[in-house]
Amino acid sequence: MTQKTIRLLMPQWQGGNNPNYSFGAELLAWLAPDNDQPLIHVPVQAYDGTPLHNEKGMYGRTQLLEQLEAARHLIDAYKPDRIVMFGGDCLVEQAPFAYLNERYDGELGLIWIDAHSDLVRYIGYDNGHTLPLGNLLGEGDKEFARHVKTPLKPENVFIAGLAAPTEQEMEVISGAFHSLGITPEEQDTEMIQRLGIRTAGTQELMNSTESIKEWIKESGIKHLAIHLDLDVLDPKAFRSLLFANPEAPYNYSPAGTMPMPLLLHLMKELSEATEVVGLGITEHMPWDSINLKNLLGEIPILNT
Amino acid sequence: MTQKTIRLLMPQWQGGNNPNYSFGAELLAWLAPDNDQPLIHVPVQAYDGTPLHNEKGMYGRTQLLEQLEAARHLIDAYKPDRIVMFGGDCLVEQAPFAYLNERYDGELGLIWIDAHSDLVRYIGYDNGHTLPLGNLLGEGDKEFARHVKTPLKPENVFIAGLAAPTEQEMEVISGAFHSLGITPEEQDTEMIQRLGIRTAGTQELMNSTESIKEWIKESGIKHLAIHLDLDVLDPKAFRSLLFANPEAPYNYSPAGTMPMPLLLHLMKELSEATEVVGLGITEHMPWDSINLKNLLGEIPILNT
Repeated sequence: MTQKTIRLLMPQWQGGNNPNYSFGAELLAWLAPDNDQPLIHVPVQAYDGTPLHNEKGMYGRTQLLEQLEAARHLIDAYKPDRIVMFGGDCLVEQAPFAYLNERYDGELGLIWIDAHSDLVRYIGYDNGHTLPLGNLLGEGDKEFARHVKTPLKPENVFIAGLAAPTEQEMEVISGAFHSLGITPEEQDTEMIQRLGIRTAGTQELMNSTESIKEWIKESGIKHLAIHLDLDVLDPKAFRSLLFANPEAPYNYSPAGTMPMPLLLHLMKELSEATEVVGLGITEHMPWDSINLKNLLGEIPILNT
Repeated sequence: MTQKTIRLLMPQWQGGNNPNYSFGAELLAWLAPDNDQPLIHVPVQAYDGTPLHNEKGMYGRTQLLEQLEAARHLIDAYKPDRIVMFGGDCLVEQAPFAYLNERYDGELGLIWIDAHSDLVRYIGYDNGHTLPLGNLLGEGDKEFARHVKTPLKPENVFIAGLAAPTEQEMEVISGAFHSLGITPEEQDTEMIQRLGIRTAGTQELMNSTESIKEWIKESGIKHLAIHLDLDVLDPKAFRSLLFANPEAPYNYSPAGTMPMPLLLHLMKELSEATEVVGLGITEHMPWDSINLKNLLGEIPILNT
């Protein structure tokens, strides 16, 4: 029987509190190869100039919950076997991957290719996109986690490409989070160890991707979802990232170091090792296209 | 009477001998604000893996001439009052601006916003995109110049943003062109002085754009065409340029230094000072989108 695949375009920006994520999603969907998979737009409240409210430790909580529910309704309308998600901030991943884990009887495998583990609410940084993997594991934020009927098993999750802060980054981070007594990195490490989630950094994967293949084999992963946060890439090679704004360098978070060829290699290897039923791509921040679009939008002959 | 404006999308790559210019043109047209101007595709022979031949000192001469003629036929089919051109390499500008100069009785003004003057065939660099302004002035390459029925008057041309090589660039350039006895910069300077073309560098324009407004006034420019080669921009701020390939730094040519806000300021000022009847935007080389598109094109779940 043919597998039914749908594509979702979810230009959500509230999870990172940055309206540019919406345009990043649109461009991402435009760059994807054409095929006969339907492209379904998830309704997202566009930025209208109103700043988001911090609601119980999360900016735009109400909008994010509404959009999560909308995504789920659309998925339930199609009942697909496979889902491609074009984000948007990382929180877009919750609806499709929660659905897929139900669809595959709680046995979905999930590889989280990301410079960040997205497991916990960082104290002092109240944006929902730090939480999707936590929510999918039944932890994270209570109001979000309760939308995950069947939490993923921690042994079915692998985090690849997690960035280790450089000394310089560590200084900035420690400074910024000093008064709180705990850094995001320490919060991540605690949860990864407590749940026993397997990880591999980019440096390790440059030498060998064996640990991932072993995980698939040992955990008996038959259906795999892939989360790709583009920030896993080295911002010197791929500059369409929050961290690579030419106008405003961003140092509050460690940057990814993965080269594009390793990412492609990994994608192909995963598709050979098991059946890929989900793919989400997130946090595309194409500065040049954003700036060029803004310029074109103000040139009189193009606007009359 | 309403002015009739058409948009041309000309994904020409042969003039720079780099197939990526085609995708840059497509993305540029996609980024432009929607309006009711018709978007007309100029047929361009797509890159099929065959290297271009050097025909009498120009790679792809035959294709470039065919495409120039096709662009002109399309323009003649519409007979517009105003033309927007989305390139492609710089040579795409010839057909629309030659037409507009005829349309406005040989009195068209042309501002060439570009890190390079595009006046002459550089000895040792046989790519057609170094020539469009030369052709439009009735010089340049004979076979191209003869398609310009009414050459522009040199006093109606202004070159803005011309890059001066840094010491380091000068070393590379002098090294590369040493055996030829003349650098591209020397060739440019000779022609600019001989024709008496006015110029202003970015540094001067940062202080004041008065020289451009004076030129418009003194030359009595009533209809103006604007050529914008994106390489006039500072590649540290806008990285979708040939010179800013993250994989392969390019040092054979001086880079632009114009900041985006100055470019926007200039565009608006020009539109206020006179009637803008032509705009061409060229040499868009969006590395990140190119690399991301290539990646997406190889991910199995997106291609089944």
